[in-house]
Amino acid sequence: VRVDELSTPAVVVDVDVMEANVRRMASRAAAAGIALRPHGKTHKTAEVARVQLAAGAVGLTLAKTSEAETLVAAAGIEDVFLAYPIVGADKGRRLLALSDRVRLAVGVDSVEGARTLAEVFAEAGRSLDVLLKIDVGFHRVGVVPEQAAAMARRIADLRGLRIRGVFTHAGQGYGGQTPAEVAAIGRGESRLTREAAEAIRAAGIPVEVISVGSTPTAASAIAAGGITEARPGSYVFNDASEVELGTCPVEECALTVVATVVSVPAPDRAVLDAGSKTVSNDPLRPRAGSFGHVLGTRSRLARLSEEHGVIAVAEGDTFRVGQRVRVLPNHCCAVANLHDRLFAVRGDVVEDTWPVIARGKVD
Amino acid sequence: VRVDELSTPAVVVDVDVMEANVRRMASRAAAAGIALRPHGKTHKTAEVARVQLAAGAVGLTLAKTSEAETLVAAAGIEDVFLAYPIVGADKGRRLLALSDRVRLAVGVDSVEGARTLAEVFAEAGRSLDVLLKIDVGFHRVGVVPEQAAAMARRIADLRGLRIRGVFTHAGQGYGGQTPAEVAAIGRGESRLTREAAEAIRAAGIPVEVISVGSTPTAASAIAAGGITEARPGSYVFNDASEVELGTCPVEECALTVVATVVSVPAPDRAVLDAGSKTVSNDPLRPRAGSFGHVLGTRSRLARLSEEHGVIAVAEGDTFRVGQRVRVLPNHCCAVANLHDRLFAVRGDVVEDTWPVIARGKVD
Repeated sequence: VRVDELSTPAVVVDVDVMEANVRRMASRAAAAGIALRPHGKTHKTAEVARVQLAAGAVGLTLAKTSEAETLVAAAGIEDVFLAYPIVGADKGRRLLALSDRVRLAVGVDSVEGARTLAEVFAEAGRSLDVLLKIDVGFHRVGVVPEQAAAMARRIADLRGLRIRGVFTHAGQGYGGQTPAEVAAIGRGESRLTREAAEAIRAAGIPVEVISVGSTPTAASAIAAGGITEARPGSYVFNDASEVELGTCPVEECALTVVATVVSVPAPDRAVLDAGSKTVSNDPLRPRAGSFGHVLGTRSRLARLSEEHGVIAVAEGDTFRVGQRVRVLPNHCCAVANLHDRLFAVRGDVVEDTWPVIARGKVD
Repeated sequence: VRVDELSTPAVVVDVDVMEANVRRMASRAAAAGIALRPHGKTHKTAEVARVQLAAGAVGLTLAKTSEAETLVAAAGIEDVFLAYPIVGADKGRRLLALSDRVRLAVGVDSVEGARTLAEVFAEAGRSLDVLLKIDVGFHRVGVVPEQAAAMARRIADLRGLRIRGVFTHAGQGYGGQTPAEVAAIGRGESRLTREAAEAIRAAGIPVEVISVGSTPTAASAIAAGGITEARPGSYVFNDASEVELGTCPVEECALTVVATVVSVPAPDRAVLDAGSKTVSNDPLRPRAGSFGHVLGTRSRLARLSEEHGVIAVAEGDTFRVGQRVRVLPNHCCAVANLHDRLFAVRGDVVEDTWPVIARGKVD
């Protein structure tokens, strides 16, 4: 099957581009002497996980228990970190079962949450590795750096848990208005994460892992030194936001959406069969202004309904009903989560179909 | 299983509320003597479709070919209208196969698009019913009213197609700033749709169906008279946007998300295990300002990541790690499309699990 024979809309991954992205990040981590643990939320597929592991990734990062259950069962992944404050005895029991099959660690950021897992593991005479989440400025979850040592002490005192390290996610990098600003955020993340680790060590608690996250800040955070692990996700596919942030050129974007023009109701408006159900309505970062670039044109998706992508036709572009186009979406992770399969493509040939097996695994 | 035993996040549907919503809209259509053809995109499940059909719906509205293929096969639906400008010979062949099993019609808004389907049906010695889409002010797809008759003439001349009627969708109703403004949009939709039908009849082409869409405008469009069919979707579940638009009270919202507080990093911030992968990041209509209401509180979801829902804690509200809450999402259709199943609930008891079989059917 060729790409132009796919029923549209369809999500295609250029495997050559993806493999180059995987190699590039693996080399960067190897050159810095740190571990690479890619966030699997970007692809949610066994096939892409295997490519990352074959290139030297130490394991996978995921967020939710069900994502880990699914990918461990399907892809034989042996080392998983759930970079998320998992809470609840029901989740604790599932993590206990999972820890029989895989080297496991999870995030914590409160004693109340950590205790729900600790009790399950302690009762089973087992111990769960945890990483303390430090808030390095994104202000989502995590303890502020000045409370890191005190919180680590309280969590280390819980029977059934063992502190393996600290982790951060400088998500504010997606708001960086220039590449220099994004890089400064990455350096800041590296420094704050390292300082939190040092404070915890000074309190007498060993810290084995110092782990930072996010694709736009990865290069600068790694270059700044002092960390042991990086957890970028989007780098494997990249997207319009990474391009806009200056993380990569369009040529390094592996995931695109093949769509068909279904209506041209006015000279300045053309409509694709790909709406928010297909390209997601995640905003372009760092500045909103488009729901996707129409590749090879100057036109962008100005407006989405669930099944309609409305192109604001730029001066000099023309679209006709029936024409096929490629759209570069704003956020590759969100796109993968909407679809049951990705088409793996080399050149114009569809080589394989990858089921997005961990799609929709929210619990 | 009780609701408070569900692994979170989980999407639950209060079946009593849903059934009342179905009855209310069915009565409204019956009282006006028009057909009700609910848009199945809201639920994408066989079970909810059957409730709608049992209450007197003449058939289902859907958008994409694959949605119809899936629901016809699973739910035995006998009458489907694809309210979408389907384009392409590949889709035409699938529609031809589908038309062996179901009474079928599809939308058209261009000769170029219509011809791709006409050729397939003509070659098979068959005829496909089509409804001409009229743009009544949403400016997405459709022909403007003054071109309706001329376009209908050109489409009626294509061998393999038969014009069954006209259809509209006043999506601009979601931007109506007051209930009075929304109602005026509904009345305008009704009038413009009727006038387009009359112009087409005056050109010598019979018009059997005059069909309007959308939940917020349904009551006023139906009351205005002169139409033969309504195609609301969201009414079956309702959501925060319908409440905000004044379409219904919170008590008529059937679909909610059960979530757990996983972090309370600051007094003004609590974080749920439900982010954009769970509640969608569709904006609140008609005015943005929240990604979901936390029911029983004055607090709202102020910010979403894929797996994090950040609550801006309102004065007087408190949240603790481990607490379960119910979130009323902004857009029920988008939520259903994110999940593999909906939990059907009466009171506190989970009665059934409904697979969202047409989820992700984008082509």
